[in-house]
Amino acid sequence: MPLKPDEAAEIIAVANTLADAARMATLRHFRADGLTADSKTAQGFDPVTIADRAAEQQMRAILARLRPDDAILGEEFGNTPGTSGLTWVLDPIDGTRGYLSGTPTWGVLIALCDAEGPVLGVIDQPYIGERFVGGFGHAALTGPQGARTLATRPARGLEQAILFSTFPEIGTAPERAAFDQLAGQVRLTRFGMDCYAYALLAMGQIDLVVEAGLHPHDIAAPIALIHAAGGVVTTWQGGPAHGGGRIVAAANPGIHRAALAILSQAAPG
Amino acid sequence: MPLKPDEAAEIIAVANTLADAARMATLRHFRADGLTADSKTAQGFDPVTIADRAAEQQMRAILARLRPDDAILGEEFGNTPGTSGLTWVLDPIDGTRGYLSGTPTWGVLIALCDAEGPVLGVIDQPYIGERFVGGFGHAALTGPQGARTLATRPARGLEQAILFSTFPEIGTAPERAAFDQLAGQVRLTRFGMDCYAYALLAMGQIDLVVEAGLHPHDIAAPIALIHAAGGVVTTWQGGPAHGGGRIVAAANPGIHRAALAILSQAAPG
Repeated sequence: MPLKPDEAAEIIAVANTLADAARMATLRHFRADGLTADSKTAQGFDPVTIADRAAEQQMRAILARLRPDDAILGEEFGNTPGTSGLTWVLDPIDGTRGYLSGTPTWGVLIALCDAEGPVLGVIDQPYIGERFVGGFGHAALTGPQGARTLATRPARGLEQAILFSTFPEIGTAPERAAFDQLAGQVRLTRFGMDCYAYALLAMGQIDLVVEAGLHPHDIAAPIALIHAAGGVVTTWQGGPAHGGGRIVAAANPGIHRAALAILSQAAPG
Repeated sequence: MPLKPDEAAEIIAVANTLADAARMATLRHFRADGLTADSKTAQGFDPVTIADRAAEQQMRAILARLRPDDAILGEEFGNTPGTSGLTWVLDPIDGTRGYLSGTPTWGVLIALCDAEGPVLGVIDQPYIGERFVGGFGHAALTGPQGARTLATRPARGLEQAILFSTFPEIGTAPERAAFDQLAGQVRLTRFGMDCYAYALLAMGQIDLVVEAGLHPHDIAAPIALIHAAGGVVTTWQGGPAHGGGRIVAAANPGIHRAALAILSQAAPG
């Protein structure tokens, strides 16, 4: 179900309206005294704050007004069915641990998906004031230094590549071993950027982002952004990535192939 | 040799002039096409860029004009002796790996030391436009949301604490084991922020930063900033930190004591 050109423009405008609202809601509590977190799981620490919930509620209210026929899948409030065949996928704060720690590398993730997968993705970093928008064949950044078109970097060997992942303790033990094998081949491995790593990939700054255990709301927006900037995002087996799980995002088909050769063999199935 | 009050004001003005110059020099190459790095060591990848060198050269030129009697210790161009008993300690880009990857968490570090140690420290993040200045009993941030005074957070138990370190592969094997023992006791451990982690500590966002293998130019500015904001910075044995090595920076004496009890026993000497 391809979108008509005027509907694409409307959808981009709606996405920006959502991102504006989430930016205000998240900044209101960012680095505030007394911000606390509830843990969503009994084991470990999976934090959610008042800011996560407020930002998603405000985005849902906007969609109810502007796009009442679309479905919504949100990290905090689940699934709202729709009739249009389109679904907004919302992660009000990707990187709540970073948000709670005051870092500037968490983000608001907004995607629109059709039956085949994500067609539009937004990564917004409210504190820096950077917004990465990709879809319909075009990717751009608006930030403190103005606006510019984004393109991923050209192919280079793994030995020249920069690899990012959120946590060094990525996934299960076999997943960790596969990641370490890839990390042993690249020039530089860095951790801790949350969704900002996908923005760095779309900007042409780095070559690979590899993660495991992702949810659909973590990856839908990065997929559309990176595709629009010229990159490739799949599972470690090379399949569609929008269901989440084990994800490899790559700047170009060459480095994607090289990473997949290691990951798919080291952690099959 | 305590400074006179009017000399303190002059010194803060000079430090801001240095930070302004380094901000321009580093931003000029940040995220630029074709930025490349030389490695300073034959083994591994210890990158230095044209931006590191240009920023330190410009700061040295300013000091030659404004503070000709002070000594300089810079990461890229070494030691320049002086006669005043004061030394400027400069790290033009702390986190060159992050700079090369396009992240917004590297920084310019500027410190002034007397015979006892750092008396003024600046951490500047040029891309975000944040400057953290601490010394002479006062710490402040100037950034996109204006200016505010900084204070570290009050004491809480390790089980409530947030711990940062640059690399998961911190230091030697015994150092890594000591770090892991501490990390096992805290609520949240995060990696990858370079000097920005010290700024988060001074802001009251996190409780601990633990590192190993630091140089004096990595830690002089954070020491002065964190002291001025109410925190404590020592080696893992509780000694003076401005020589570098194994560093624990803490929000308050209580959490410092708790971290030191683990680190000093797990990695003695």
